[in-house]
Amino acid sequence: MSYKSIAVVILAAGQGSRMQSDLPKVLHRLGGVPLVGHALNAAHSLEPEQIIVVAGHGAEAVTKAVGKLDPDARIVLQSEQLGTGHAVRQALPELEGFEGKVIVLYGDTPFIGEDTLAALASHHADVVVLGFEANDPGRYGRLVVTERGLEKIVEYKDADEATRQIALVNSGVMALEAGLLRQLLPRLSNSNASGEYYLTDLVALARAEGHRADVVTCDEDETLGINTRAELAAAEAAFQTRARHAALENGVSLSDPATVWFSLDTAIGRDAVIGQNVVFGPGVTVESGAEILPFCHLEGCHVSAGATVGPFARLRPGAELGGDVHVGNFVEIKNSVLDEGVKVGHLTYLGDAHIGEATNIGAGTITCNYDGVSKHKTEIGPRAFIGSDTMLVAPVRVGADAVTGSGSVITEDIPDGGLAIARTRQVTKPGLGIRLMQALRMKKTEKR
Amino acid sequence: MSYKSIAVVILAAGQGSRMQSDLPKVLHRLGGVPLVGHALNAAHSLEPEQIIVVAGHGAEAVTKAVGKLDPDARIVLQSEQLGTGHAVRQALPELEGFEGKVIVLYGDTPFIGEDTLAALASHHADVVVLGFEANDPGRYGRLVVTERGLEKIVEYKDADEATRQIALVNSGVMALEAGLLRQLLPRLSNSNASGEYYLTDLVALARAEGHRADVVTCDEDETLGINTRAELAAAEAAFQTRARHAALENGVSLSDPATVWFSLDTAIGRDAVIGQNVVFGPGVTVESGAEILPFCHLEGCHVSAGATVGPFARLRPGAELGGDVHVGNFVEIKNSVLDEGVKVGHLTYLGDAHIGEATNIGAGTITCNYDGVSKHKTEIGPRAFIGSDTMLVAPVRVGADAVTGSGSVITEDIPDGGLAIARTRQVTKPGLGIRLMQALRMKKTEKR
Amino acid sequence: MSYKSIAVVILAAGQGSRMQSDLPKVLHRLGGVPLVGHALNAAHSLEPEQIIVVAGHGAEAVTKAVGKLDPDARIVLQSEQLGTGHAVRQALPELEGFEGKVIVLYGDTPFIGEDTLAALASHHADVVVLGFEANDPGRYGRLVVTERGLEKIVEYKDADEATRQIALVNSGVMALEAGLLRQLLPRLSNSNASGEYYLTDLVALARAEGHRADVVTCDEDETLGINTRAELAAAEAAFQTRARHAALENGVSLSDPATVWFSLDTAIGRDAVIGQNVVFGPGVTVESGAEILPFCHLEGCHVSAGATVGPFARLRPGAELGGDVHVGNFVEIKNSVLDEGVKVGHLTYLGDAHIGEATNIGAGTITCNYDGVSKHKTEIGPRAFIGSDTMLVAPVRVGADAVTGSGSVITEDIPDGGLAIARTRQVTKPGLGIRLMQALRMKKTEKR
Repeated sequence: MSYKSIAVVILAAGQGSRMQSDLPKVLHRLGGVPLVGHALNAAHSLEPEQIIVVAGHGAEAVTKAVGKLDPDARIVLQSEQLGTGHAVRQALPELEGFEGKVIVLYGDTPFIGEDTLAALASHHADVVVLGFEANDPGRYGRLVVTERGLEKIVEYKDADEATRQIALVNSGVMALEAGLLRQLLPRLSNSNASGEYYLTDLVALARAEGHRADVVTCDEDETLGINTRAELAAAEAAFQTRARHAALENGVSLSDPATVWFSLDTAIGRDAVIGQNVVFGPGVTVESGAEILPFCHLEGCHVSAGATVGPFARLRPGAELGGDVHVGNFVEIKNSVLDEGVKVGHLTYLGDAHIGEATNIGAGTITCNYDGVSKHKTEIGPRAFIGSDTMLVAPVRVGADAVTGSGSVITEDIPDGGLAIARTRQVTKPGLGIRLMQALRMKKTEKR
Repeated sequence: MSYKSIAVVILAAGQGSRMQSDLPKVLHRLGGVPLVGHALNAAHSLEPEQIIVVAGHGAEAVTKAVGKLDPDARIVLQSEQLGTGHAVRQALPELEGFEGKVIVLYGDTPFIGEDTLAALASHHADVVVLGFEANDPGRYGRLVVTERGLEKIVEYKDADEATRQIALVNSGVMALEAGLLRQLLPRLSNSNASGEYYLTDLVALARAEGHRADVVTCDEDETLGINTRAELAAAEAAFQTRARHAALENGVSLSDPATVWFSLDTAIGRDAVIGQNVVFGPGVTVESGAEILPFCHLEGCHVSAGATVGPFARLRPGAELGGDVHVGNFVEIKNSVLDEGVKVGHLTYLGDAHIGEATNIGAGTITCNYDGVSKHKTEIGPRAFIGSDTMLVAPVRVGADAVTGSGSVITEDIPDGGLAIARTRQVTKPGLGIRLMQALRMKKTEKR
Repeated sequence: MSYKSIAVVILAAGQGSRMQSDLPKVLHRLGGVPLVGHALNAAHSLEPEQIIVVAGHGAEAVTKAVGKLDPDARIVLQSEQLGTGHAVRQALPELEGFEGKVIVLYGDTPFIGEDTLAALASHHADVVVLGFEANDPGRYGRLVVTERGLEKIVEYKDADEATRQIALVNSGVMALEAGLLRQLLPRLSNSNASGEYYLTDLVALARAEGHRADVVTCDEDETLGINTRAELAAAEAAFQTRARHAALENGVSLSDPATVWFSLDTAIGRDAVIGQNVVFGPGVTVESGAEILPFCHLEGCHVSAGATVGPFARLRPGAELGGDVHVGNFVEIKNSVLDEGVKVGHLTYLGDAHIGEATNIGAGTITCNYDGVSKHKTEIGPRAFIGSDTMLVAPVRVGADAVTGSGSVITEDIPDGGLAIARTRQVTKPGLGIRLMQALRMKKTEKR
């Protein structure tokens, strides 16, 4: 479905004091991504003309995070927290001249589904409120619906007993015609117990002017908001349960689904095998038939078909593993491309490197990519054999079919097919080992 | 109990299309072993004269896997999937001349217990069907039992309301006299909705000829079949729950049972201590009183009494740890024997090695066992002291009580009690370090 | 609250045969600490004058463990297990002259709360029994309470039907005046089915002499005793659930609470971020805003604000990380102080070291702290740059702003600002690498 003229306003100004945190609430992470990222993600499903984020508490940090997640999103500041209506009002300057539908989302409500948003966006009424049948309606605002649509939203404290029996309640998410929004927002009043401007009051104002209001419903799960760390943990668990189930449905092998953690954008192909205790940070793609062994940590990387990774491997951003690459235990790969068939079996750090196809990297190899000031690149050609404990002091280039001797510190380029060695010949002194140890033991005894 | 004249036929030809996988269903793993391995394991508990596996989808891969699990099992091919009766018929040539009882098992039904199989095998009736009281009988075939034994199996769709009330249902597992099987199988008909030959129809045929049929019952849990990855995950969870419970009962300390994963053949002694997040692949034995710290991955290895392993250790096939051996963090041991009291504390790879008792292996030691073409062996005698970052270029032999200097690349054998060193003397240039860093910083600034 | 004249007797003599273990029951661990440590911890909340532990089975091991946990606790031996009354009697010599309240706790009952103990300690009655309303009173002794206080404790087997209806039961924990204890203990009889001296019989003896007995109640959860490994596992799960909940309440970020394991004394600051699969052994403090990435193992260490640790890092006892320190993957730190801003990114072992602020430790660095006989110290000044794969052969001192060349074995001190290098110049032989590999391949082919 494609939409014309949608603008999304995301309210992200709250402090979230019940989080017991200095971090603004919307920057707490869920599925590897700040909460506000989920709202941005949902917004993008509508292909909106513009996205406006209303920041307040921790605005600087929120601005920075939103900038990373979506450089096109506009940020407006709500310097005082005077209610949802006031928050949306801060977005009006950005909406000047916009003639379409404005959808208001919340930065701490990560689970609104794309189908739900599509239904909101395509509804014909002037004001559309997202409601849901609550298991326990509790203190939610009740939605009074008649054959004429949504009559009014009654706050719990103002509701009589009959109205309190209504299970259809207000999620807070709303869609309105931009013109109507511009017209009504300035007329919101804060004459209420909290002294705040409530967005929900727009319904009454619109109805009073003869505009039509209506309700679109969704599952209660979609409206889950995050207010405490325990709720965040529960939301994370719900997110992971869904992601694990989806992976199984898509034909991914999970040895123990409960110990695989996905990010919002993790993409894993059919018949990939994922062992116990694998963490997928943001930005990971794993092709069909690749195998991730237990105890791996991946982030911002790509694993091609036939590759095997781990156990105990870490792939950091920019790690690109070609087909049939093998990355073994205690290996870290950062910002490096490993062409097809490269083997890196043990105890290795590859950073800022390009490794040609079928090259074998010996145990204990390290790309010395940092000289204390800058990072440098290591290039290794195809079919090379890097001996164990080779230090590759970057910038350096090792040619195709080249070989390095075990324990060598490589500081100069090696031509194709060349052999480089940088070590001293072994000197063996018969009897000296045992005498040395005896002397050390004696010394220790004397000291006592 | 020992049995005479048992043959087991394992049906393993299905594709398992609901698994969303290119891997044949019976090769998906449960408890570290392909599903068909569980059926083979169950079959072996009967000490059968022969085991015949009927392969179909992915027959090549199934044949290879079965060959590894049980080289004596015979494989027959069912090239078209025309029903369970047709599948068993493919096994008849292998059963020629066999006069005993044939038991039909399923490659995707891993939990049939040994006691259940023993009851099936020792039952006197000509045809014995394994049934169970279903919590939700659903669409299972109902077993109609009278004082004369099993009268008939009525498929759900053919059952009247009274028959549908029967909770005793058919698991599909069956035991029959071989002669009867040979006689009746060719008479099965495929005149039914699916156009398939059903093994269950043998009951009616046998009864019609005056043979006695009967039912042996088992728990519903035992009959759990695997059709989707979600079911596989649930089966794995059930397997692990049982294995964890059994370990606790046997006196194993599990810091958090839910984070220890067992394989079908894992054997752990009383008072062994297993930390959080330990994966036991196939073929692991751990003796009494050994300790496996958190975050370890073990496969095909033996850990003796008093040994400590981990955290963050990987023991690969062929790792044999003697008494009181210590293997520490970020250490990988493959195909290596470590005699009593060996210490390998940190960041080490030992492959294809034999280490004598009480030898100390320094941090960062690597057996350079692969020269790019072949693997070679490293031998280290007892009481040796291998300095940190020693590269042992195999094949190489280090004698008893020998010592290597830290940072040495050992390419030649060291005699007993000898000291070997292969490094350059340190050169120290006063003031040069700080000037070098200043120069690098300046260079970087200029570049900007 | 502070108390005068409290003595605590902890009964820790039982074998715990249902644990299937050679380890005395009270030494099995919960929350990283032996069970008896929880009882000691509870006892200390009362600031008692003395703590007496009654050991029996495995007394030597119990004595050693208690000595480590609390050097001031006295140990008395119960050489035969003749009942709880007999056990407490062994403590009488230690209580000679003590005039206050004696509280009897159990080494296998780890969850008695501090508030509960405070209520026991401050109660005015001569004998105070800790009771609880049991969900399933089962075979517990019933507490018969009237307006005069606790009338008697009736064992289940002696109780009539009416008494069995009482849900208030005996936990075994008791507080008594020391003088009364001394007077009554010798009068306990073992004329019962088990032939044991029961502490609970003191209630009847005291009442018979006109002393007042009463009941203090607690939650049933607090009285959970450990008799099997399954019960221990359940208790551990309960302990962890509470600790995780408390951490969330205190503002700690837990990516997946179910995969973080706390010890009894773990202390973590607000806004610290703890990834999946982190094990906190005893003695860990993490300051506000520090981040522990997934797959870390910490014990006896301190992590300051702004520091990041892991993934795959191990901090061992004595690791002290200053502010903004970064410890990366496959890094082990033991008994070492890292000043502010130190970076240790990859594959490193630091043991018995002090690293000055802002120093960078290259990948693969190892402090060679053990010479085969003794441990030695490494000192590195501030702002130093330790090249990759540097071996620091302790005792050794690297000055401020000093630099080491990658792959160097440092055996001599380096002055401030100095550069030290210990390696051979690279020799490159064109064409030799590819010819060497060809020769190895040919050799392998010939062998076949």
